[in-house]
Amino acid sequence: MAEPRKTRTPRTGRRPGASGSRDAIIDAARRLFAERGYSATSMRAIGAEAGVDAALIVHFFGTKARLLRESIQWPFVPEEAAQQVYGGGRRNVGENLARLVLDTWEREGDRNAIMTLLRAATVEPAAAEMMRDFMQRELFPPLFQRLNPDRPELRANLASSQIVGLGMARYVLRFEPLASASPDEVVAWIGPTLQRYLVGKAP
Amino acid sequence: MAEPRKTRTPRTGRRPGASGSRDAIIDAARRLFAERGYSATSMRAIGAEAGVDAALIVHFFGTKARLLRESIQWPFVPEEAAQQVYGGGRRNVGENLARLVLDTWEREGDRNAIMTLLRAATVEPAAAEMMRDFMQRELFPPLFQRLNPDRPELRANLASSQIVGLGMARYVLRFEPLASASPDEVVAWIGPTLQRYLVGKAP
Repeated sequence: MAEPRKTRTPRTGRRPGASGSRDAIIDAARRLFAERGYSATSMRAIGAEAGVDAALIVHFFGTKARLLRESIQWPFVPEEAAQQVYGGGRRNVGENLARLVLDTWEREGDRNAIMTLLRAATVEPAAAEMMRDFMQRELFPPLFQRLNPDRPELRANLASSQIVGLGMARYVLRFEPLASASPDEVVAWIGPTLQRYLVGKAP
Repeated sequence: MAEPRKTRTPRTGRRPGASGSRDAIIDAARRLFAERGYSATSMRAIGAEAGVDAALIVHFFGTKARLLRESIQWPFVPEEAAQQVYGGGRRNVGENLARLVLDTWEREGDRNAIMTLLRAATVEPAAAEMMRDFMQRELFPPLFQRLNPDRPELRANLASSQIVGLGMARYVLRFEPLASASPDEVVAWIGPTLQRYLVGKAP
């Protein structure tokens, strides 16, 4: 999986030798997956976009699923996100998590990465697994270390279900008026749901 | 759009003439869309599965998106669903709606129809529009006629976001332990969220 963006070295624009071709392939894949969707994008098309032979992509990455994995940049570092969400304590974690999600998705580039993965996950088991891994092993564990609730895995699933559903409804299916509502309004509605899932009393 | 199942005439097994071919095409499309996904299913493959020429599919349906529309069977009649969800009044509508959704999705055939559409909606605008139409114009209006809350469209969107997210998390992404939790447990967690979105105080 690609490293979170903050720890990536800056792109230089040069594309010399193998690592240049590798970067060009990843860039091309990221662009085409976002534009056309994972299923509709062939290795051949990625090769053409990157200006390399499709055989070189197979050489570097093996499969399209592996290339997807390499091309996803998570838009934040989980440990930093946990600190930001936890903030001053348990009382606002739902609202803070909703805010983090909305802030991320309102930036088009960061939205594209997760939407690409979400779209791919509906047809490609490897993408569904990446989504599970990120939610279950990276995003929530550092937060739950601070919150220490009962049944943390189920709570993480439930919060994930609302986050994924919000992404689908607002950005993919574009339900109106939700798609055009201000981030503040969305946070005000979704925050209490996440708060209950994260730290509320179990039913 | 196909009629809800309860009002369909029973299949006879005979496939005489044009209406037999038409039914065979719809059956084949429904099966292949569910198995392979909408994007990965070609008109040619549907023709082969149905034992007809792809040109006949174009003759009957025009486009693959139109065929998708014809092949989706909504698993319940919205007016009946509204009556069931409203039941004795406002107090249990969230739990009742969660129960209706879970009961529907726990039946494999009914789950496949909606999951096919959800998968297709991530890549096919016509499918996203069908999803919007069903949620916005069919499922929620008869319920909101009874509940009469402020901002019914936004509330319908928010409830839809949790329902769609639950479908993705439990049946597509298969987050565990949510995917294996009992329907009763899922209803107990999700019900209060839907209750707040449907009739709770706006923030």
